[in-house]
Amino acid sequence: MTIHIINPNSLSHVTDGIARAVAPIAAASPVPITCHTLADGPPGIETQAHVDGVVAPMLHFARGLETDASAFVVACFSDPGLAALREQSKVPVIGIAEAAVLTAMTMGQRFGIISILSKSIPRHMRYLGAMGVMDRLAADLPLELGVQDLADEARTFARLQEVGRTLRDGHGAEVLILGCAGMAAFRARLETDLGLRVVEPCQAAAAMAVGRVALARAQ
Amino acid sequence: MTIHIINPNSLSHVTDGIARAVAPIAAASPVPITCHTLADGPPGIETQAHVDGVVAPMLHFARGLETDASAFVVACFSDPGLAALREQSKVPVIGIAEAAVLTAMTMGQRFGIISILSKSIPRHMRYLGAMGVMDRLAADLPLELGVQDLADEARTFARLQEVGRTLRDGHGAEVLILGCAGMAAFRARLETDLGLRVVEPCQAAAAMAVGRVALARAQ
Amino acid sequence: MTIHIINPNSLSHVTDGIARAVAPIAAASPVPITCHTLADGPPGIETQAHVDGVVAPMLHFARGLETDASAFVVACFSDPGLAALREQSKVPVIGIAEAAVLTAMTMGQRFGIISILSKSIPRHMRYLGAMGVMDRLAADLPLELGVQDLADEARTFARLQEVGRTLRDGHGAEVLILGCAGMAAFRARLETDLGLRVVEPCQAAAAMAVGRVALARAQ
Amino acid sequence: MTIHIINPNSLSHVTDGIARAVAPIAAASPVPITCHTLADGPPGIETQAHVDGVVAPMLHFARGLETDASAFVVACFSDPGLAALREQSKVPVIGIAEAAVLTAMTMGQRFGIISILSKSIPRHMRYLGAMGVMDRLAADLPLELGVQDLADEARTFARLQEVGRTLRDGHGAEVLILGCAGMAAFRARLETDLGLRVVEPCQAAAAMAVGRVALARAQ
Amino acid sequence: MTIHIINPNSLSHVTDGIARAVAPIAAASPVPITCHTLADGPPGIETQAHVDGVVAPMLHFARGLETDASAFVVACFSDPGLAALREQSKVPVIGIAEAAVLTAMTMGQRFGIISILSKSIPRHMRYLGAMGVMDRLAADLPLELGVQDLADEARTFARLQEVGRTLRDGHGAEVLILGCAGMAAFRARLETDLGLRVVEPCQAAAAMAVGRVALARAQ
Amino acid sequence: MTIHIINPNSLSHVTDGIARAVAPIAAASPVPITCHTLADGPPGIETQAHVDGVVAPMLHFARGLETDASAFVVACFSDPGLAALREQSKVPVIGIAEAAVLTAMTMGQRFGIISILSKSIPRHMRYLGAMGVMDRLAADLPLELGVQDLADEARTFARLQEVGRTLRDGHGAEVLILGCAGMAAFRARLETDLGLRVVEPCQAAAAMAVGRVALARAQ
Repeated sequence: MTIHIINPNSLSHVTDGIARAVAPIAAASPVPITCHTLADGPPGIETQAHVDGVVAPMLHFARGLETDASAFVVACFSDPGLAALREQSKVPVIGIAEAAVLTAMTMGQRFGIISILSKSIPRHMRYLGAMGVMDRLAADLPLELGVQDLADEARTFARLQEVGRTLRDGHGAEVLILGCAGMAAFRARLETDLGLRVVEPCQAAAAMAVGRVALARAQ
Repeated sequence: MTIHIINPNSLSHVTDGIARAVAPIAAASPVPITCHTLADGPPGIETQAHVDGVVAPMLHFARGLETDASAFVVACFSDPGLAALREQSKVPVIGIAEAAVLTAMTMGQRFGIISILSKSIPRHMRYLGAMGVMDRLAADLPLELGVQDLADEARTFARLQEVGRTLRDGHGAEVLILGCAGMAAFRARLETDLGLRVVEPCQAAAAMAVGRVALARAQ
Repeated sequence: MTIHIINPNSLSHVTDGIARAVAPIAAASPVPITCHTLADGPPGIETQAHVDGVVAPMLHFARGLETDASAFVVACFSDPGLAALREQSKVPVIGIAEAAVLTAMTMGQRFGIISILSKSIPRHMRYLGAMGVMDRLAADLPLELGVQDLADEARTFARLQEVGRTLRDGHGAEVLILGCAGMAAFRARLETDLGLRVVEPCQAAAAMAVGRVALARAQ
Repeated sequence: MTIHIINPNSLSHVTDGIARAVAPIAAASPVPITCHTLADGPPGIETQAHVDGVVAPMLHFARGLETDASAFVVACFSDPGLAALREQSKVPVIGIAEAAVLTAMTMGQRFGIISILSKSIPRHMRYLGAMGVMDRLAADLPLELGVQDLADEARTFARLQEVGRTLRDGHGAEVLILGCAGMAAFRARLETDLGLRVVEPCQAAAAMAVGRVALARAQ
Repeated sequence: MTIHIINPNSLSHVTDGIARAVAPIAAASPVPITCHTLADGPPGIETQAHVDGVVAPMLHFARGLETDASAFVVACFSDPGLAALREQSKVPVIGIAEAAVLTAMTMGQRFGIISILSKSIPRHMRYLGAMGVMDRLAADLPLELGVQDLADEARTFARLQEVGRTLRDGHGAEVLILGCAGMAAFRARLETDLGLRVVEPCQAAAAMAVGRVALARAQ
Repeated sequence: MTIHIINPNSLSHVTDGIARAVAPIAAASPVPITCHTLADGPPGIETQAHVDGVVAPMLHFARGLETDASAFVVACFSDPGLAALREQSKVPVIGIAEAAVLTAMTMGQRFGIISILSKSIPRHMRYLGAMGVMDRLAADLPLELGVQDLADEARTFARLQEVGRTLRDGHGAEVLILGCAGMAAFRARLETDLGLRVVEPCQAAAAMAVGRVALARAQ
């Protein structure tokens, strides 16, 4: 049996990053954790059409993994297809955004989210509203960095610091969430720098999946 | 220019029912209203997988209508693809669930929803949460009737009365919403019977689209 | 039959501005739209006493128009007497604040309101609370301009830009609402300037009334 | 200096009932408490038009009492003109509905409201929404008794018991509020009968006014 | 019979400050007001452990005062043991934070809180969430002053002004609450300086207790 | 290193029941799970005074375990001392009520809670309000069984079924939470009987702790 983490975009280097992020968790897991790239997914999930469009291929892909699955993790911060995969699968299904939010809710009263681009924030707001946790949100602020800028690690970290500080000092965030699957490399440094807990969503989700696999033993 | 109403399931008799429901509105519209069946849609939208899966073909279909569109109406009470179609299109996009809720909010302080099956209610709750209007909801209760039962008009109306009365007397609903695209034929009778305004969502959406087409003239 | 728009203050030049704002909508309406000045109203509605005090004369005035009314629009951003006129009249009654908010809720996840003066904001907050839509509000910020300053168009527009930018960049507003009946002339320019949809409340209400008149044909 | 309680309807026997209800409070007040009948008010406040229409005469009446006022209490459960009187007056202004709710919030986590008629409940809901306290409401249920029935004390008390029990056992109310100015005579018996605290709104408001008069000494 | 105000920390000079703050209220009270220092309390209540730890000795202390108590006031802005003391005592129990919030809710639509240190704000947020009044909160901002700095009155007042202005101008607060039992001396000056009502929580609680003692006469 | 589960009451047979409930989870945990009885705790935690009073001895006890702790679980459904222990400890601290709620939020849109006695429900409501998740609650209903009745397993299960059915059919709960640490033995049967997921809070918390221990490896 295996915890299957599905990166619903088609970029295998993103999947590799997720695998590196969750490797220490896998080491403590009672079952293996395997990361998959959804070959039929788009090269990035940036629009609502991407979010909705990726569901059908992801459900198809997950159906093929169901028989040896202990749990699924959907590794995109929009949690595409989370409700649909829960309908389809018999095992726990964890979305990285939901897992990050629920984990952050045990670490501080108000969480801040650092998004890449402002255009995804309304989607996050709809989702947090559907989760019923808007009163726990400090704010969701964008780095507003393009692909080019994100390639520059120093520049990206500087913006993470800047936005994180605004969330902490201007919006009362006690804990931060990295609102994207690809920033795990910055987590520890940002946590140290800001003096706040920083939740990397793939790690939060993998850890929650480990817990749920353990829980299933009791049920 | 045209208001395009898209029934995202593949059943043309459902589309015919929508067309009948909105015909009186079309007569008062400054532009024609045309109802379409999404040939690529499933025969019914019952699961979250249906809701998500219908988005890509619907976006494709709507793209073909964009050049002569004044507005789009998505005619399924789960409002599939509403956010995605708004990203894609330059004209107003109205979902029948959202339109029904916003219309009901002008007719009474708390609205009740009559759903066909209880399994769709959690989806509605997520959506009302995302809309941020949970405090206006009296309750969402199911008819819990199968396809066979729904074919029996007398039985269906009896359940509509029963559930409507519970929403009015047990949950304080001041206005009711029919939580499905195919019950327009019962609207007027139910309204008279219960003494409450009853909103049929396709009509509410078509009417809102008419208004938005008028609004676009001012902008 | 007619859509009657009632400006509840006594200034006919305000009514003229509303008539200009809704003229393009009237051209697409199945029934005429007529704007009225409430002669018994105060010269401006600035305090809660004005809001409450204008209800009785407005109800009296509307009663005289009821027989040929298709719908009423109350054209003051405090929606004075909305609930009372709904009790009195058999036709749809639309308030410009409610209509602007409900319209904005279909254009973006969080709306910002630009008010003239900060002293009206608590009244708006009470109203948005009563509507149950506080989670959709980005912020409500004042121009804080007096009558003299408002006469200076360039200065007014500069403040609209400044406050609109703060709502967009500092508070995450995706769509803006002009929180007063008299700023229609700035709408289009502000929308272009900020790259956000801007809702003029009289237009939103007139358009919604057009839709509701069409809806009434189906009921 | 005096605490002025204004009954905004024109029935002096209602005012007499209020005076009897607050007499024990007056005995503990540092200033006299005087109850007034608003001669220009309607014989009962049952519609939204009554609520709005009573504001202007009440403001006029209160202006005449301002110079020797320590505080005002508006003694109608719709709190008509509360915001307007607060704008006008320099002294504390207490509404009986607001006071009852705030008092109940110190006596239990969720309060139930017993209203006379269901038609006033949407107005209460708008008000509780404006107060931002909907999460503390268990439910608001009507006696649904007409004037004739209310004249029958035994019948009225039986309905109070019945509705109170439903609020306690079916809706989780820990404390009850009598949603009308004229049921003080039943308060103690109902409290004993149900084993729940029962808040009479005129008493709650008068007591809060006593507190605010004391507070003013410190400011 | 007496209103007992319990300062749950062990510093008698803090108790003395509370006594000075409520002295004018005591003068208008039908029963004496007595301030007590909880000898077994910690020298200050700064952590959650302090909040929870002080409950048992406070309950013990209050039990000894019960027989001649008209009401209790818990005089620490975390309202330690409020629910427990309400379970234990037969008389009204008022917490200074709750009383300040409920009082502020009658003075403006959104209240701002000025806290001493940011680390207590998450505790306040949990409490306001439990009270169900988050929609009425403008913001809760810290002075972030240490004990040394607080000893400097001029510096403290300058920070109070600065934070108060931010709450008023940046967050829309209409009324301010001093989020600590020891800043009564600054209340009046801050109110005058900012042009906003400023609620001192011990005074608000003592005044509410006076009202509740009066209310008890009616019950 | 160890996950320490602390039963804050003094009954070792309760601790034994918890140990049995989490045994299958322990088998899948990367570190041992040890259950402790707080000898200084009361024989049951039934009042708010118990909840608050148990914090100091529990903090003391936990301090002694800190050096070899991987995580702490507080095993009482009132989550006593959760915030305080989080302040004190460097490792993850999980409360069984919080963990049950967060787990249930991934299993259904609205959760129902089955409490033993109605008197604990207001405490739960305050806590859910502090967590900001009231919109996800279907209802919290009591078994209302005394200690004698609880000893009768058949009777207890019959009430669990009855209350669970009411939560499912009358309140729309999609998932249930056992609102007490001692009903693990009924979980599986109740789940099967009702066709709803049933969350046992000690198991949910232990599983979440396992996940958090894994997460700590990545941080």
